[in-house]
Amino acid sequence: MLSKANIKYIRSLQQKKYRQRYDKFIVEGTKIISEILQYPNIDIEYMIASSSWLQKYSHLYPHIPIIESNEKIMKELSSFNTPSDVLVVIPTLSPSLDENIIQNDISLFLDGIQDPGNLGTILRIADWFGIQHVFLGEGTVDLYNPKVIQSSMGAFLRVHCFHYSIENLAEQFPNIPIMGADLQGDNIFELSPEKKKGIIVIGNEGNGISNETRKYIHQRINIPAHGKAESLNAAVATGIICAIFRN
Amino acid sequence: MLSKANIKYIRSLQQKKYRQRYDKFIVEGTKIISEILQYPNIDIEYMIASSSWLQKYSHLYPHIPIIESNEKIMKELSSFNTPSDVLVVIPTLSPSLDENIIQNDISLFLDGIQDPGNLGTILRIADWFGIQHVFLGEGTVDLYNPKVIQSSMGAFLRVHCFHYSIENLAEQFPNIPIMGADLQGDNIFELSPEKKKGIIVIGNEGNGISNETRKYIHQRINIPAHGKAESLNAAVATGIICAIFRN
Repeated sequence: MLSKANIKYIRSLQQKKYRQRYDKFIVEGTKIISEILQYPNIDIEYMIASSSWLQKYSHLYPHIPIIESNEKIMKELSSFNTPSDVLVVIPTLSPSLDENIIQNDISLFLDGIQDPGNLGTILRIADWFGIQHVFLGEGTVDLYNPKVIQSSMGAFLRVHCFHYSIENLAEQFPNIPIMGADLQGDNIFELSPEKKKGIIVIGNEGNGISNETRKYIHQRINIPAHGKAESLNAAVATGIICAIFRN
Repeated sequence: MLSKANIKYIRSLQQKKYRQRYDKFIVEGTKIISEILQYPNIDIEYMIASSSWLQKYSHLYPHIPIIESNEKIMKELSSFNTPSDVLVVIPTLSPSLDENIIQNDISLFLDGIQDPGNLGTILRIADWFGIQHVFLGEGTVDLYNPKVIQSSMGAFLRVHCFHYSIENLAEQFPNIPIMGADLQGDNIFELSPEKKKGIIVIGNEGNGISNETRKYIHQRINIPAHGKAESLNAAVATGIICAIFRN
């Protein structure tokens, strides 16, 4: 059973401040937790489930201590209006940067993506297209925000995310082309194959790429419009650019 | 000033049942309302704003009666946690179907898109790529849901949406190819240009294209995966398919 102190600690992880203090975060939901449990190097600090969940699934996890909790507590621990039947508390991830990937493949730099659903969706896109490194620039929503984790559908386990400024990235990798979406940019459908690598900058939902970041862009690229909309959603634009760059 | 009955009526439009009963819906926000006011054929039933909004913007609209309301009422009328300073009540739209467009261009059929943010984002994609007809199949969220309207960023004004079953569509347009995304489908990057027209079916977020709808699909298409994600977000997949079909 969970003590009051346990509950207070786990609930605190709904806030970024405490996730950073303890280097832990919460993941909810059967499907995504079943994926986590396939990574033996991830230490499960807590696994908590309702009695109905335990009846259905506990036989699958004989080696994991699972704490049974009632609905009221599950609701307190959950960040969602409809709490899941199961959640885990795990350490934040510390992926390592692979310079070879940055030199020879596509990476993403997110220049202040604020909506958690968009960040999660972008990680899912990266995962789909096998993009292994995503750099989270200043102003980007916390990776461990419950809505990011949920909308990433497990992609946060496979895509390596790093907190980086564009300045540091440009300094550390001076020969890597940095590209940014821009209405005045080159048509992405007309880029030659050798242009389709480097770091793709995705701008903030409302303001696009910041002036500070813009200074580091070598190549401006554009998804041609055929109608009257002013812009595309940031995650949709990311999806289109990644699809074109990968094919 | 708004009477209690006025407030009760407008609030009722937060629910689909009453939107359908009165054929009216609410739109919130300065930017999107400024777009609506550019369409002279849209009758504004109510326009309601806070005093601070009126101070800033009322000089732009000398011919429109705008009702001033306090914060408390604006909050009651709004569907959002952060209510806008201005809202309008307008009639639901009745676009007309253009057979020529269906015969010669791309249209979308949404096979039960449930998330309002996804539907709004898909309309924004259609608007960007100049796709004029979107068919809302059974199980698709209500077009006039406030979150759909908000996330469409004004696209609902330009993209014509119709309630249609795939059966009726296939009957009425027997010669139009109907395409559906499918992991076993043909690579969309390898389709010949003449294959890139017709009706594109977008499946439900969790379950994909229904078995019923599947019977009407002539051509299965696939966005090739390069990583390990199981699927792409429905709106992102729509964006990628539309981008490829338009270029």
